[in-house]
Amino acid sequence: MNVDAYFVPAGVEPADVAERTAVVIDVIRATSTIVTALAHGARAVYPTVSTEDALKLASSLGRDDTLLCGERKGLKVDGFDLGNSPAEYTEETVGDKRLVMSTTNGTRAFAAAAGAERVVAASFLNLGAVADALEGAEELVVICAGKEDRFSLDDAVCAGHLLRELEERGGEPLGTDDAATAALRLAAELTPDEAFLRSTRAGLALVEIGLESDLALCARRDVFAHAPEMEDRVIRLSSGGSESE
Amino acid sequence: MNVDAYFVPAGVEPADVAERTAVVIDVIRATSTIVTALAHGARAVYPTVSTEDALKLASSLGRDDTLLCGERKGLKVDGFDLGNSPAEYTEETVGDKRLVMSTTNGTRAFAAAAGAERVVAASFLNLGAVADALEGAEELVVICAGKEDRFSLDDAVCAGHLLRELEERGGEPLGTDDAATAALRLAAELTPDEAFLRSTRAGLALVEIGLESDLALCARRDVFAHAPEMEDRVIRLSSGGSESE
Repeated sequence: MNVDAYFVPAGVEPADVAERTAVVIDVIRATSTIVTALAHGARAVYPTVSTEDALKLASSLGRDDTLLCGERKGLKVDGFDLGNSPAEYTEETVGDKRLVMSTTNGTRAFAAAAGAERVVAASFLNLGAVADALEGAEELVVICAGKEDRFSLDDAVCAGHLLRELEERGGEPLGTDDAATAALRLAAELTPDEAFLRSTRAGLALVEIGLESDLALCARRDVFAHAPEMEDRVIRLSSGGSESE
Repeated sequence: MNVDAYFVPAGVEPADVAERTAVVIDVIRATSTIVTALAHGARAVYPTVSTEDALKLASSLGRDDTLLCGERKGLKVDGFDLGNSPAEYTEETVGDKRLVMSTTNGTRAFAAAAGAERVVAASFLNLGAVADALEGAEELVVICAGKEDRFSLDDAVCAGHLLRELEERGGEPLGTDDAATAALRLAAELTPDEAFLRSTRAGLALVEIGLESDLALCARRDVFAHAPEMEDRVIRLSSGGSESE
């Protein structure tokens, strides 16, 4: 398996993802939240880059069973139904709902991945299931959301742990570009627990706005046994998945 | 000392460097070449982003003592005097010359750093001298050139080795952002020898165009005892420096 990694979505060109399998990672917090929401019964997540697009899409989908979700500067957007904390996405709140979601970094990573053959949403919460879903993929592109176009250590370390798992399963070294090599090296050194997440820039930003409790939720490994996939810009639970939490 | 690092210049805003000391790193090969050129008697290096700007600047400086230098796709630009191999920059060739230089990645990193209080050019060739020059700096920004807006492992590992040296000298941990933390971790694992440089994407690209011999030149540590600085977009040997090769 050959792997290219991008630490921010800004440099990803359509040709970089075409005919390849893309994995999108935004540990703090978009993919952690999306994985949680779908595991808790949401029908689909529609990532949109701007809040304006989110509003338009939600009204065209019909507001009865659609929730407006997302954040700016970490906090729920005014007038939206939900923010970007995994804790908000309970079965009671999101069960059978469509979620239109706009976040600062994560939804841009999905936009950058949109031209790939497959697009899989990954977080620590579903790392093993993502590794299952990637079995047989030959050309992989890992797109980290980063934070405001800058490198995020939490995403890079998550990418590295995913690649380690793929390498162990495949029984041979992956073909890696510089960024994927770096991610593997970082994962060999860094354990993704709550204290680690708190030390990152994204983690510190959450602590500052009083959302520290999200970090423990995002640090859990393999609590959901599904790898959501995006098709035609809609993210859904892949048919093979099941919830293990 | 607080350190922010950028793995590509694309995301660097003027406010990110203002009133701070910036270090520019392009191991393969711009800063390795610039450091070599100045150590070998070049009077000054004028980094320019486009080859058109290089041509204009060279003719306004006067072509008698000015050399046009730089590469595209690794190879010397048609009509230019020199490419981007450190080996070309001998005392005989560059002594007392002004060098107008345009490279694919390195000169963009200098452009991104231009608004900083000080801008220092670093490579493995002069890492110790750069650490000397940074003594007393409180707010440091490390700008890696990367490769075509993508992460370059050689630059990141060089940044990490510089930060390790600063940390050892200072006797206390640096305050690091996510990227600087990652650079430190990578440097703890990766030794910057010729084989390592050959394994990077930039190194492989040099091998492909027959310039593999540059890698050994770029991998040497501390062969020059000066830290060139850029002022008003001109890079010169800092007054305190002396040549140790």
